[in-house]
Amino acid sequence: MKRINVAVLGCTGLVGQQFVRLLGGHPVFAITCLTASGRSAGKEFAACVDPGAVAAGAALRGRRVRESTVQSVLDCRAAVAFSALPASVSGPLENELRAAGVAVFSNASALRMEPDVPLLIPEVNPGHLELARRQRRRHAGFVVTNPNCVVSGLAIALKPLLALGLRGATVTTFQAVSGAGRRGVAAWDILGNVVPHIAGEEEKIGRETRKILGRLAGGRVRDAGIKIYPSCSRVPVKFGHLQSVSCEFAGEVGVEAVREALAGFRGEPQLRSLPTAPAAPILVRGEADRPQPLLDAGAGGPGRRAGMAVSAGRLRRQGRRIAFFLLLHNTVRGAAGGSLLNAELAAARGLIPGSGA
Amino acid sequence: MKRINVAVLGCTGLVGQQFVRLLGGHPVFAITCLTASGRSAGKEFAACVDPGAVAAGAALRGRRVRESTVQSVLDCRAAVAFSALPASVSGPLENELRAAGVAVFSNASALRMEPDVPLLIPEVNPGHLELARRQRRRHAGFVVTNPNCVVSGLAIALKPLLALGLRGATVTTFQAVSGAGRRGVAAWDILGNVVPHIAGEEEKIGRETRKILGRLAGGRVRDAGIKIYPSCSRVPVKFGHLQSVSCEFAGEVGVEAVREALAGFRGEPQLRSLPTAPAAPILVRGEADRPQPLLDAGAGGPGRRAGMAVSAGRLRRQGRRIAFFLLLHNTVRGAAGGSLLNAELAAARGLIPGSGA
Amino acid sequence: MKRINVAVLGCTGLVGQQFVRLLGGHPVFAITCLTASGRSAGKEFAACVDPGAVAAGAALRGRRVRESTVQSVLDCRAAVAFSALPASVSGPLENELRAAGVAVFSNASALRMEPDVPLLIPEVNPGHLELARRQRRRHAGFVVTNPNCVVSGLAIALKPLLALGLRGATVTTFQAVSGAGRRGVAAWDILGNVVPHIAGEEEKIGRETRKILGRLAGGRVRDAGIKIYPSCSRVPVKFGHLQSVSCEFAGEVGVEAVREALAGFRGEPQLRSLPTAPAAPILVRGEADRPQPLLDAGAGGPGRRAGMAVSAGRLRRQGRRIAFFLLLHNTVRGAAGGSLLNAELAAARGLIPGSGA
Amino acid sequence: MKRINVAVLGCTGLVGQQFVRLLGGHPVFAITCLTASGRSAGKEFAACVDPGAVAAGAALRGRRVRESTVQSVLDCRAAVAFSALPASVSGPLENELRAAGVAVFSNASALRMEPDVPLLIPEVNPGHLELARRQRRRHAGFVVTNPNCVVSGLAIALKPLLALGLRGATVTTFQAVSGAGRRGVAAWDILGNVVPHIAGEEEKIGRETRKILGRLAGGRVRDAGIKIYPSCSRVPVKFGHLQSVSCEFAGEVGVEAVREALAGFRGEPQLRSLPTAPAAPILVRGEADRPQPLLDAGAGGPGRRAGMAVSAGRLRRQGRRIAFFLLLHNTVRGAAGGSLLNAELAAARGLIPGSGA
Repeated sequence: MKRINVAVLGCTGLVGQQFVRLLGGHPVFAITCLTASGRSAGKEFAACVDPGAVAAGAALRGRRVRESTVQSVLDCRAAVAFSALPASVSGPLENELRAAGVAVFSNASALRMEPDVPLLIPEVNPGHLELARRQRRRHAGFVVTNPNCVVSGLAIALKPLLALGLRGATVTTFQAVSGAGRRGVAAWDILGNVVPHIAGEEEKIGRETRKILGRLAGGRVRDAGIKIYPSCSRVPVKFGHLQSVSCEFAGEVGVEAVREALAGFRGEPQLRSLPTAPAAPILVRGEADRPQPLLDAGAGGPGRRAGMAVSAGRLRRQGRRIAFFLLLHNTVRGAAGGSLLNAELAAARGLIPGSGA
Repeated sequence: MKRINVAVLGCTGLVGQQFVRLLGGHPVFAITCLTASGRSAGKEFAACVDPGAVAAGAALRGRRVRESTVQSVLDCRAAVAFSALPASVSGPLENELRAAGVAVFSNASALRMEPDVPLLIPEVNPGHLELARRQRRRHAGFVVTNPNCVVSGLAIALKPLLALGLRGATVTTFQAVSGAGRRGVAAWDILGNVVPHIAGEEEKIGRETRKILGRLAGGRVRDAGIKIYPSCSRVPVKFGHLQSVSCEFAGEVGVEAVREALAGFRGEPQLRSLPTAPAAPILVRGEADRPQPLLDAGAGGPGRRAGMAVSAGRLRRQGRRIAFFLLLHNTVRGAAGGSLLNAELAAARGLIPGSGA
Repeated sequence: MKRINVAVLGCTGLVGQQFVRLLGGHPVFAITCLTASGRSAGKEFAACVDPGAVAAGAALRGRRVRESTVQSVLDCRAAVAFSALPASVSGPLENELRAAGVAVFSNASALRMEPDVPLLIPEVNPGHLELARRQRRRHAGFVVTNPNCVVSGLAIALKPLLALGLRGATVTTFQAVSGAGRRGVAAWDILGNVVPHIAGEEEKIGRETRKILGRLAGGRVRDAGIKIYPSCSRVPVKFGHLQSVSCEFAGEVGVEAVREALAGFRGEPQLRSLPTAPAAPILVRGEADRPQPLLDAGAGGPGRRAGMAVSAGRLRRQGRRIAFFLLLHNTVRGAAGGSLLNAELAAARGLIPGSGA
Repeated sequence: MKRINVAVLGCTGLVGQQFVRLLGGHPVFAITCLTASGRSAGKEFAACVDPGAVAAGAALRGRRVRESTVQSVLDCRAAVAFSALPASVSGPLENELRAAGVAVFSNASALRMEPDVPLLIPEVNPGHLELARRQRRRHAGFVVTNPNCVVSGLAIALKPLLALGLRGATVTTFQAVSGAGRRGVAAWDILGNVVPHIAGEEEKIGRETRKILGRLAGGRVRDAGIKIYPSCSRVPVKFGHLQSVSCEFAGEVGVEAVREALAGFRGEPQLRSLPTAPAAPILVRGEADRPQPLLDAGAGGPGRRAGMAVSAGRLRRQGRRIAFFLLLHNTVRGAAGGSLLNAELAAARGLIPGSGA
């Protein structure tokens, strides 16, 4: 079966390199285009910042990196563009690509809150993909976004709890330095320290969670009424965002009910067995001291599925609340992997030209 | 003026060395006795694990460490014992010292919840010291405890909010490795990692906070009704426990009211200008990214007061709640310094023989 | 083909778990026995401290851990024992196992300097295995040891330089905390710090390097005359011992000659294509800032070969010397993997009953 | 006595803030001018990146930061300029200041190797200050530089060994992240890692050490013949450059002779009791595992002298060599403190107008 040509925009950063790793040997997509800023354009691609990406990148050795432009994507006949562009340049370029007929799957925050752009997690709100179909009617292509890295895990964990009467969640995050990009956090600031602030993050967490958990009606998303109380911090960890979550429910809910809801949760990616879908999106651990970033960020399976499951642990009663710790791999499920799963869902639903569904 | 002889029990650990540092040149107390386990007994005291303690310890160079027994304390004619003993041996020895007429100020957890033992923070519940007076009637001496390190900061911050109608607090901690003692956390477990579990800690936080904020009536403490939702974790930081706190109130409360309540809070140590009392127990910071363990753990002033103030920052509205980050120095205000301030209050109130008040 | 039964002694530590991981699906050896101290005996095996070992350990789930005794090994009909025992108990037990006819491959230091025990690195001194044959004549079994973790990499790098006239090497190490075992280094001591001392390490480096590079003559090893000037330190790194090496030669030697000697080096494991042998024992890197522990410790290939190659980089002239940085994975090539490669060589040479060569 | 007006150029960086801290309450110098790049010019000075600097900086609160220009310095009537400017801008501006009659004490590398500019460590080569006198004859002012941070400690340790017949030193460094400036090392690159490369550093170490240890003859410095074999690396430490040093001598030299030479070393700053001079420039430690960056970087005394002594430890024989570990505080003795001591020497020798000697 013929694979669909794809571009990776912003291939030199941490998220870009995860895209390259995840797309190595992918059954549906084939990289034909790697782009970066003008400074890297013309150079040979080198997957040097992540040992995991080095092996996957070996197949692309010698490929020239192009400048991040619409023309680069079109020249490579890419029908799909995965965007790991910095926020400052992503919006305009993604809009241009959409106008040029490209299906854009973007990790950037610029267009996430646009009313006609789905903010998608395939296990949580696959129906919002309908917005992409609507976009395509007005534009030649479409843009699908995946949420902020914290929300990528939080919304998965909260979704199955809605049926138990979830009303609110107090969330304190322990975010890894990779979330700020390779040079985003100075060693001097974070070694042996915790920085209790990430600019704009808390606002995104509330806003994006409510959009994802909302329902599509009349062509637009009506936000969910759930209350989120977020506090964000940066910790000296390389990969894996840990979250302390304390949930309030409308009625009495027990630890076992929450455990079953989390562990038993399955979504469309699992039903369709999408290539990057983990067997179960949430792994519930029973140990006293897990999940831990170093031990559990890669949950989900070997190979491409590693890092695609979120881990929950230390489920316990807190008065009338239920609390747990949650962990996700911020550059996989929280970025490149989440975006890729969105594209796999879109392809499976026949939204991408050439995907033949 | 003659100083009161004191013993430091468990002088070789991190908390013991802070006691030695804080007591160096103290106007009220003078160390006449240093004890440790049998393994260290007979050796010369060396303040080697903390550079700050080295200078203070210089005055004690050559002193022999004795074994932690009642006899050691009595031999040195110490009227006061500061206990930094491990939990496993602290209870029985502290009881024996009390029976022998010693005023024990203990950082250990063994006796904290005993009904006749005050769990004391001088700024928060100085009236509970009355329990020590009652003890002295039945025993020759008495035991006064200071709370768990997290509670030592949390209760200070919550106290001034009670008047604003505080009903509950969701608290996630980022605790430094020194909280587990010098060898309590293995490097292999915590380097580049977060461990979302500290055995027994969450139970202590709820229990001790309610006792401290409770009121003394009829010779016993009636716990405060406030709800605490704690989640504890260990982070790769050496000193300083950071806490993410989200507060619920009975009515509508604004950020400014909380800021004023915290910044304006003063207690008996400030009124009495106790030697180790900071000018204000809570320092409210206005920066976007403070407090941070590395920058702010030492708040409170130079010298003996360094580490005695807690720092609050990022005060902000969260729906109907008010949230902030809180930081305290876990081995100073959260351990040795807190215990010393208790003893200073007891001496000022004339509870210690020879304190002459 | 029938696989040889093996025991892993000390299966619960960091090195023991690497043995389990490396032996998962091994073509020659099959684990029939897992042992540990009496405290763990009787419990189910759990590969919990290393995420990589978890998957490999899954096949062994439910296996009972036995106490580390000769009887445990014999009960499981193991012909080979891999020893990751602590130094304090390894010597006597390994001697007993040898007397009982077991082929022991030991990572422990107790017997390394025994005149009749080979201290073996298959690429460097395969001929020393002759000592095992001699042992077997006097005892029913034999003991083969692998060197100290630093030497495991250093001797590989120095071996091909002997032909260039190498006379001496000044070596400063940056050793990972895993080298001291899971609880060997306290977080309090190493976070944000370097400790310039590892007890006994510098003595081992000189002594063991000279034995390995020595030649076997008349049934005993005559030490090589090379001079080693070692300085050891511990750094806050989890895996991977980095070494700064400055080499002196008898005559004039150029950087290119050293590069070719290192990169071109091959040994018997490569000729025999042993299962755990990397394609080349030394990977020479050309980047300005490599090798780095986090990026390069796993060099050698995917799967079982990962961590079996050492990496050299920054080859450069220093006056009349040639200097480079060297890196090896301390618990793989420097411990469990080195020991396993020794056993593979012994099996290939027909030294192990049932290995049928 | 009237203090001399001084400017701190580049006051917002890590070295600049150390200058401010060290100059707080200085008996000879008084800050009248704080400069930084155009981006910071006009803002109020804030000593925010270093807790130690905060207190010292309090006295300067409200001072406006000026742009780093000659006019700024002249407007403030500063006779002395301490330069913590980035290498890219330091050379031209320092030359202009010299032409304008200012005495420049520079931590920047631009002019260090100029034949008429002294590269000065007051304990090592105070006589080289004669070059400043010569400069002043041709220019209105002069420039005095202090060496690279590693050399600032190394040259002090090697100086007293010259009399013992020192011929060469193999040096491997463990350099703290502060050496690269506040944002110079990304957390992603160094957390749990070691980077065996610092651009240009090894070249500087050889070159500058030979100039400092050289002798002034006929108006120029003749480099010392000593051989340096440097290898540099970056470690996840905040302050304190550790060095592993292995020394070769012309003849037989014992450990005790080296210990006495190091511990007994005194220079002109000690004889003159300069304000920032430590009692002894080298502190020789006897413990098995010292010096350590976290424990020993601040050696030299309390207050202004903290960080001005280097620490040596683990003195031991290595064949015919003597090896030790050496530590210095890289932003104090290795930067701002070294520069200040140079100025104090110049003032004491009457080289600075108004210093009245």
